[in-house]
Amino acid sequence: MAVPENKNLLRALTRQTVTPPPVWLMRQAGRYLPEYRAVRADAGSFLDLCYTPELAAEVTLQPIRRFQLDGAILFSDILVVADGLGRKVTFDEGPKLEPLRDASELESLQPDRVCERAAPVFETVRRVRRELPANTTLIGFAGAPWTVATYMVEGGGSRDFQRVKSWAYRAPESFARLIDVLVDVTSRYLNAQIGAGAETVQLFDSWAGVLPELPFRRWSLEPIRAVIANVHAVHPEVPVIVFARGAGANYEMLAAESGADAIGIDATTPLGWARDHVQSRCAVQGNLDPALLVAGGAALDAEIDRIVATLGRRPFVFNLGHGVLPETPPEHVAQLVARVRKPR
Amino acid sequence: MAVPENKNLLRALTRQTVTPPPVWLMRQAGRYLPEYRAVRADAGSFLDLCYTPELAAEVTLQPIRRFQLDGAILFSDILVVADGLGRKVTFDEGPKLEPLRDASELESLQPDRVCERAAPVFETVRRVRRELPANTTLIGFAGAPWTVATYMVEGGGSRDFQRVKSWAYRAPESFARLIDVLVDVTSRYLNAQIGAGAETVQLFDSWAGVLPELPFRRWSLEPIRAVIANVHAVHPEVPVIVFARGAGANYEMLAAESGADAIGIDATTPLGWARDHVQSRCAVQGNLDPALLVAGGAALDAEIDRIVATLGRRPFVFNLGHGVLPETPPEHVAQLVARVRKPR
Repeated sequence: MAVPENKNLLRALTRQTVTPPPVWLMRQAGRYLPEYRAVRADAGSFLDLCYTPELAAEVTLQPIRRFQLDGAILFSDILVVADGLGRKVTFDEGPKLEPLRDASELESLQPDRVCERAAPVFETVRRVRRELPANTTLIGFAGAPWTVATYMVEGGGSRDFQRVKSWAYRAPESFARLIDVLVDVTSRYLNAQIGAGAETVQLFDSWAGVLPELPFRRWSLEPIRAVIANVHAVHPEVPVIVFARGAGANYEMLAAESGADAIGIDATTPLGWARDHVQSRCAVQGNLDPALLVAGGAALDAEIDRIVATLGRRPFVFNLGHGVLPETPPEHVAQLVARVRKPR
Repeated sequence: MAVPENKNLLRALTRQTVTPPPVWLMRQAGRYLPEYRAVRADAGSFLDLCYTPELAAEVTLQPIRRFQLDGAILFSDILVVADGLGRKVTFDEGPKLEPLRDASELESLQPDRVCERAAPVFETVRRVRRELPANTTLIGFAGAPWTVATYMVEGGGSRDFQRVKSWAYRAPESFARLIDVLVDVTSRYLNAQIGAGAETVQLFDSWAGVLPELPFRRWSLEPIRAVIANVHAVHPEVPVIVFARGAGANYEMLAAESGADAIGIDATTPLGWARDHVQSRCAVQGNLDPALLVAGGAALDAEIDRIVATLGRRPFVFNLGHGVLPETPPEHVAQLVARVRKPR
């Protein structure tokens, strides 16, 4: 299936070199925008916002109106899947979950409930798709199995990931059952987003960077590869982006073996290395430091230029190396978009 | 100056291949040991413990008595330097500092006070050196300038390092003045530790991994190189270890350009990559996942074997990829040491 000429993001993700490169930003809909804060204030809980299509669609579209980005990412949260499985999830300075501590609780998970509970998310996708400008690509997403598992087992964020790692190290067979459940429901959840209108999907493996090489392969890479295979089996034409934070030298393995169409690299990844070891295998997406977007000024322009100069000659999507920070002045985002699109 | 035949750690750090490899563990003196908790309970504040030579020497020696490790690392804290500069430092579930917010406060720093205030630390070094077994190497240490600067500017740990990065991005000239002060006092502090009896020193750059490539070069690598040059100017025979957490593909740059005799790699660094890109340039130290040391069992043995098999044929020091976790059963440390030293 040919990619429409006006969909720059989709073109780059299907490994075409696009000049200037398409641009979108992780967490482009969020607290740094006053219009987001206004919706958020009226929306009840954070999950209520994710499950209310009218509001979730509105906040998805806000940054597109302001900045005419090439991609609109569905407003939702990676823990919708944990919630759908029947775990208690709340947000209050970060997520809090009822922790899943061992294999005895696996039977209580409700895989068939995930897509049912996520019906409003698919409705959001349909609404956004109807309202998006023709040249804007709609991005669906989910958490990668390892990252969702860490939240489910730790009960929230963690400093050393000792609980989830203990389970994985001591009882890999039962931990694999949790991961298998997540591979299954994540695949179905993403395919349903695509069915509703998502044109590409991104897997967020935010905590891949806490795993040594072999557990990285087993708990990050292999489940991601399985999800991508399940998505491509149903939607072979839909590109999949994998953003694994902190993967370091393991980005090369991810690019070579996951089946991803694009690899999102974090802000610490050296550009020349990414060009030689990742972009040789698939499209690259990244990787401006979000703190530099807060700082702004000439340093921001210079770094944008350096990123585009190094990665822009092959399939590339401009993005941050992590999400937009709440302290970001919106005018810096406008400066970024203009600079990326500057004729060179 | 020839390294004594019985000092296995020093031999490996001066780029000799030692079989079996020497072994010590970051944070080997600490909360996982009941004898440490007993001393800690009587010691007043954490800084009081660091500044009381009798107690600090005792906790430095505790893991040597139990496990006969090849290296004894001075018990102290990287924030002794910030304290010496005149910043208020306390510990309570992690460090808290009176934050240094901008250049206007730089004049208040007292570089000449650092080594004066650290006199008890040097006395600890002297005591430990006298009491150590002849084949055990005494390791001094300091925080790298970037990491100490992050604590001083953020006022403690941080999620996104936005304050220190904002300063570095917006006003690199004045931030460089802070870094220069830290290079100067860290160099003098390490040279004084060596003067008191430390046989090698390690720089901890715990937060190097939050910096993109160019700031990594400017704020992590270059100050480290300057400190190492200052140490080697006075003590050319003393090897310097650099442990930068989360450096990813940037470990290669650090190995090639810092002047370090050994590079400590974190637990996520792939072993074959480290062998080819880091160990080709200097000794490597690392990198078992501390969470696997908590878990123990056959998985621990298998990973130790894999690390030794991959890195043990060239200059190598067995260590963790980060500090020992408080939940670690001491008998797992004994298992680790025996396994590393097993004839192969």
